[in-house]
Amino acid sequence: MPETIFDKIIRGQIPCHRVYDDAFTLAFLDINPIAPGHTLVIPKHAAVTLGELDDESAAAIGRVLPRICRAVCAATGASQYNVLQNNGPLAHQAVMHVHFHVIPRNPRGEHRDEAGLGVRWNATAIDHAMAGQLAARMRSLLSP
Amino acid sequence: MPETIFDKIIRGQIPCHRVYDDAFTLAFLDINPIAPGHTLVIPKHAAVTLGELDDESAAAIGRVLPRICRAVCAATGASQYNVLQNNGPLAHQAVMHVHFHVIPRNPRGEHRDEAGLGVRWNATAIDHAMAGQLAARMRSLLSP
Repeated sequence: MPETIFDKIIRGQIPCHRVYDDAFTLAFLDINPIAPGHTLVIPKHAAVTLGELDDESAAAIGRVLPRICRAVCAATGASQYNVLQNNGPLAHQAVMHVHFHVIPRNPRGEHRDEAGLGVRWNATAIDHAMAGQLAARMRSLLSP
Repeated sequence: MPETIFDKIIRGQIPCHRVYDDAFTLAFLDINPIAPGHTLVIPKHAAVTLGELDDESAAAIGRVLPRICRAVCAATGASQYNVLQNNGPLAHQAVMHVHFHVIPRNPRGEHRDEAGLGVRWNATAIDHAMAGQLAARMRSLLSP
C-alpha cells in the first residue's frame, strides 16, 4: 500500500500532538478537528480499511479505545462523544490508513450544536426476508 | 444500570437476525437499518458507554470488528462502509448499552446517496496552544 502521512507521523518525521502510544497503536490529536480534543487512534501496522486489519492490531485498538475515550472526556470536560471509523472515499475516508476518530460532542460542557459530529440517519423498517438471507450469509462466513 | 432491549436479545427473549456471537460479543442486524446489512456489534457484559467498557470486552470487540466488516461487505456487495459508536443522547446514542454500527455505504454496488451514513464535518484549523495542553493532559492520564 502507498505510504500516507500517518506513516511519517508514526516514524516521527512529521510532528503530532501525541496522546498515547504502545507497541501496536498510536493516538494523537486530529490536525483539523471538528471539536476541541478530536483524537485519532491508529494501528502502527498499516492497513487501508478496518476489514484488512490483522487480529492483533484490531484487538489492541479495541482494548485501548475506552482508555482514550476516558482521557478525551477528562481533558475536554465532555461527557458525550462519537467514535467513527470510515472506510473508502464514499464513506468519508481521507487518509488511506485505518483510523478511529474520537470526537467530543459537548467539549468543555458547551452544548453548541456545531461542535462535534453531525449525522444524517435515514432509518428504515427492516425487510425481514432480505435480512434473514443476509444474516445467514454472514453467519456462514463467520462460523469457525 | 437499567436493562435495555439488548439484554433481552442477548438472553434470546427477543429475536434478532444473528450474525455472530462468542463469549464476549454478539452481532446482529439493526432492526431499523440505514442501509441493507446495517449490523450492530455489542458486548455481552453491558456498559452504557465505550469509556465504561472493561478491557477484555473492548479487546474482544476490537478483534472481531474486521471480521464483521468483511462479512457485511461480502454479503451485501458493499466495498465501502462506516463504523460508528455513539455515547450519550446528544451524540445520537439511542440504546444505553455499548454498540458499534457497521454501515455499508454502497450496498449491492448501488451509489445511492441516501443509503448509509451521512456526516456533517465542520473541520477547523487546530489551535496548537490549546492542543498542546489537551494532549499533555491526556498523556499524563494515559501513562502507566
